[in-house]
Amino acid sequence: MRLLLDPQLNPASETGWRRRWFDIIYRHDTPRARNFDLLLIVAILASVLVIMCDSVASIHARHAHWLYPLEWAFTVLFTAEYALRLAVVRRPWRYALSTWGLIDLLSILPTYLSLVLPGSQSLLAVRILRILRLFRVLKLTHYVEEGGILITALARSRRKIFLFVCALLTIAVIFGALMYVVEGPAHGFVSIPTSMYWAIVTMATVGFGDIAPQTSLGRFITSLLILIGYGIIAVPTGIYTAELASSLREASHEQSHLDRRGCPECGLEGHAPDALHCRHCGHALPAPMG
Amino acid sequence: MRLLLDPQLNPASETGWRRRWFDIIYRHDTPRARNFDLLLIVAILASVLVIMCDSVASIHARHAHWLYPLEWAFTVLFTAEYALRLAVVRRPWRYALSTWGLIDLLSILPTYLSLVLPGSQSLLAVRILRILRLFRVLKLTHYVEEGGILITALARSRRKIFLFVCALLTIAVIFGALMYVVEGPAHGFVSIPTSMYWAIVTMATVGFGDIAPQTSLGRFITSLLILIGYGIIAVPTGIYTAELASSLREASHEQSHLDRRGCPECGLEGHAPDALHCRHCGHALPAPMG
Amino acid sequence: MRLLLDPQLNPASETGWRRRWFDIIYRHDTPRARNFDLLLIVAILASVLVIMCDSVASIHARHAHWLYPLEWAFTVLFTAEYALRLAVVRRPWRYALSTWGLIDLLSILPTYLSLVLPGSQSLLAVRILRILRLFRVLKLTHYVEEGGILITALARSRRKIFLFVCALLTIAVIFGALMYVVEGPAHGFVSIPTSMYWAIVTMATVGFGDIAPQTSLGRFITSLLILIGYGIIAVPTGIYTAELASSLREASHEQSHLDRRGCPECGLEGHAPDALHCRHCGHALPAPMG
Amino acid sequence: MRLLLDPQLNPASETGWRRRWFDIIYRHDTPRARNFDLLLIVAILASVLVIMCDSVASIHARHAHWLYPLEWAFTVLFTAEYALRLAVVRRPWRYALSTWGLIDLLSILPTYLSLVLPGSQSLLAVRILRILRLFRVLKLTHYVEEGGILITALARSRRKIFLFVCALLTIAVIFGALMYVVEGPAHGFVSIPTSMYWAIVTMATVGFGDIAPQTSLGRFITSLLILIGYGIIAVPTGIYTAELASSLREASHEQSHLDRRGCPECGLEGHAPDALHCRHCGHALPAPMG
Repeated sequence: MRLLLDPQLNPASETGWRRRWFDIIYRHDTPRARNFDLLLIVAILASVLVIMCDSVASIHARHAHWLYPLEWAFTVLFTAEYALRLAVVRRPWRYALSTWGLIDLLSILPTYLSLVLPGSQSLLAVRILRILRLFRVLKLTHYVEEGGILITALARSRRKIFLFVCALLTIAVIFGALMYVVEGPAHGFVSIPTSMYWAIVTMATVGFGDIAPQTSLGRFITSLLILIGYGIIAVPTGIYTAELASSLREASHEQSHLDRRGCPECGLEGHAPDALHCRHCGHALPAPMG
Repeated sequence: MRLLLDPQLNPASETGWRRRWFDIIYRHDTPRARNFDLLLIVAILASVLVIMCDSVASIHARHAHWLYPLEWAFTVLFTAEYALRLAVVRRPWRYALSTWGLIDLLSILPTYLSLVLPGSQSLLAVRILRILRLFRVLKLTHYVEEGGILITALARSRRKIFLFVCALLTIAVIFGALMYVVEGPAHGFVSIPTSMYWAIVTMATVGFGDIAPQTSLGRFITSLLILIGYGIIAVPTGIYTAELASSLREASHEQSHLDRRGCPECGLEGHAPDALHCRHCGHALPAPMG
Repeated sequence: MRLLLDPQLNPASETGWRRRWFDIIYRHDTPRARNFDLLLIVAILASVLVIMCDSVASIHARHAHWLYPLEWAFTVLFTAEYALRLAVVRRPWRYALSTWGLIDLLSILPTYLSLVLPGSQSLLAVRILRILRLFRVLKLTHYVEEGGILITALARSRRKIFLFVCALLTIAVIFGALMYVVEGPAHGFVSIPTSMYWAIVTMATVGFGDIAPQTSLGRFITSLLILIGYGIIAVPTGIYTAELASSLREASHEQSHLDRRGCPECGLEGHAPDALHCRHCGHALPAPMG
Repeated sequence: MRLLLDPQLNPASETGWRRRWFDIIYRHDTPRARNFDLLLIVAILASVLVIMCDSVASIHARHAHWLYPLEWAFTVLFTAEYALRLAVVRRPWRYALSTWGLIDLLSILPTYLSLVLPGSQSLLAVRILRILRLFRVLKLTHYVEEGGILITALARSRRKIFLFVCALLTIAVIFGALMYVVEGPAHGFVSIPTSMYWAIVTMATVGFGDIAPQTSLGRFITSLLILIGYGIIAVPTGIYTAELASSLREASHEQSHLDRRGCPECGLEGHAPDALHCRHCGHALPAPMG
């Protein structure tokens, strides 16, 4: 949730237009602020759509004359918004170097870059990341809470998944080198890095088929690799599922153990539902309500 | 379950042929109604089979002269059934606009359309959706209950899976644009939408191989995308499994914890259903209620 | 477990050679019976290996002169064993029509068939099913118990997985017909059954790539199908995991709740570990041991 | 964890240079030992990187003149380290034949072999296995503990996963033979082992597409195999997830249920760790031990 709320952002001044705009841009609990957020989201989605359409050759050929100016219009709009954001906070550098500030910058930079390096407009697709602001609009709904549980479980699985990726890479190196020796450049395994790419593609059960073993020994090793990958695919799912189940259990535990009786003597709370006496001072507890 | 039962359907009249047909068509608990349902299911399956066979070139060449009339026969049959359904309910529009009414309409429309637009008969395969009526015949068996648990767990995971699909699409946009820039149209990544299609195919570990990276950088980015996808594949499974486990636990909990008798002497609860005496103080328990 | 033990098999006679052979062939708890089982397993594996080797063109060209007789030798051996099995049981037909009897027959039939239909020897690979007898040798180990838990969980998930396969086929029919209309025979979608094959290959994330969408609309529908398949892949895993977890919990529950105190008054067992009094007659229980 | 710690290794002598080097090489708790470990890890990673780069044709063409000597330098370094390891332990043979000793040997052998057999340097990639020593450096962090839980769950699932692989191979043999008969060498199914390779690739949802069915019957059998594989993919995940969940539960159970004090008055157990009085009768509890 740290990513979504940022209590350290303060308005540049307590009154005046900067304060008014700060409330519109950075807060999400007034009607005007919510309208601004919605407008921004529409603009982001429209802008990404324009970039996507412009990349299709047939659309580009016919509609480039108005898509190109539109792209620039969106960029100017987002640049103005970025400048405004920096203008109304007390410490502009802090915002500029925060995750959100960097995403804002990245989402306007490629258009200016395209004046020097043609073709870099496609990188504007990074603008889609700004859509994560969507969560701030939905803040009052259940989505953030649900997302919170998903992210908590991911964070808890962090170390286990890191170990898993290490194991995966180790296997990819060994099988990659083995296949490079066994199949050789003639069958598409042109180098160890390429073989590692193939090993990852195979173990993850993607299997493009752009590179495939053609010797009997290579096919035998591939079968082995697949069986190992098949056994290993269980690991991240298992890790995540187990952590998620425990997160969900805790969440429902907190809700169900709402025995909020306080001890009349010492005030201690959090007694077991079947407790008759305070576990601290031994005084009789009131009867549970639920 | 809401989808399967529809208590708001009322017969158009309380007596006469409409009432008789209403009982046959919409109810499922009399022998005649069950026979009608079975006949309907056989007709649906046969009709879908005819459409499938007719689409095979070699079968079409040899058997079109009797498959084509058969297709029309089924359509006329289903049209008659649809008219009958509308005729015997009190509010025909309500039924026509319900999920079932729309499926019924969709399953006869393409044949008539094919008089104008040749080739649209294949869309008749949508008739297979009518087979969901099958559940109504099986209503008395365990299948509906089991399906109910599966659907409950899906419904509970709804918001989490929506968040997950959003995350997936965001990653697809970013990696799609990246690969469009890195690999370019020469290697099959002809536009950002095409690259997104490739990113989805890759992340979901389908990997057709119709489009595959060919530069070293492209392969490195692909490996990264696969590892991300591999980590992410755990999420929907984890969500669904955790929810399903909790649904199953609740279902079995409801069955096993039906005994809420407290000991009249010491107040202890949680006795076995067959207990006659408190396991703590030995006092006689009240008779169980359930 | 029903498959592995067959208490209804009785020796044809209580004494004589038939009884002796019955004990060797059908029992697994004497040294001779275990030696017979081991010998049989070695013969089965060797025979399958011969069939596999013989199918490789280069090996066939060079070694057919001794592989072919070897194949016949194994067939004669298994035929003799089959005849012996039928000879020593009291009701030969009952055995011949049991699962094991049919597998035994299937594993010798193709060789005789190959005299009439050349090439059918490859079907001898069905012999590998006889290896399931292996479990009988391992009977005293933990493997059968573990397998039992796996099979119990599968059996419990039976109905849910059937529903799931129905849902899968329904989606395959609809998307198959849709892709047949959208892509058409020109892009490999030559008929609805072929399109259904493609839909199953895609949804299950296999993705051979022998058939792949080539139009924009086709690719969009494919992305949709993949997302649906991706969401659905969670279902069987979730079902099975939840059932397996509950099976394991029950198994460990049975082991951990070994409170085997019997009531001194009425003899009832199965008290809760913290019980001080019999839940049936209220008599004081002895103190727990563990 | 047995793999990581080896208490049976003893220094060759209690004093002198061998003892000093033993402490540096085999222990990991002094600053010098940790520096040695870090240096070793850097050397291993650098050496594997050199091998990988050298396998890329374009890099090899330009940089072979200094990559080749570097490769030999690493080999001489690791050979010296290996000799030192053997020199300072009391029983060199015991180390030489341990898992670590064999990995050490394997990671220097291919370079010497390459003098006789050109091209075998690529097998040096096995050096990456030495990186597992990394865990010894990280010993004091949480990683080993987390890895311990993952490995415990894998070890517990051992027998179940073995059964699963047997089932998988049995299905691969039968479907492989079937497809060999149905599709035949003309469509790429050139032998039963090749068909088995295809069946494994298909069931594991890898689906390279280098071999794909082309007849209707073959595609039908493939759909069947995929549905079976799809159902079966749940099994290892289910096994592992269930075991992992139970491992995690036990780990947290051990932490939370450390309080085994019974009430001196009524004997009730299961008090909270901070409880001073029995929650049932209010009697003072003995002080906690842990």
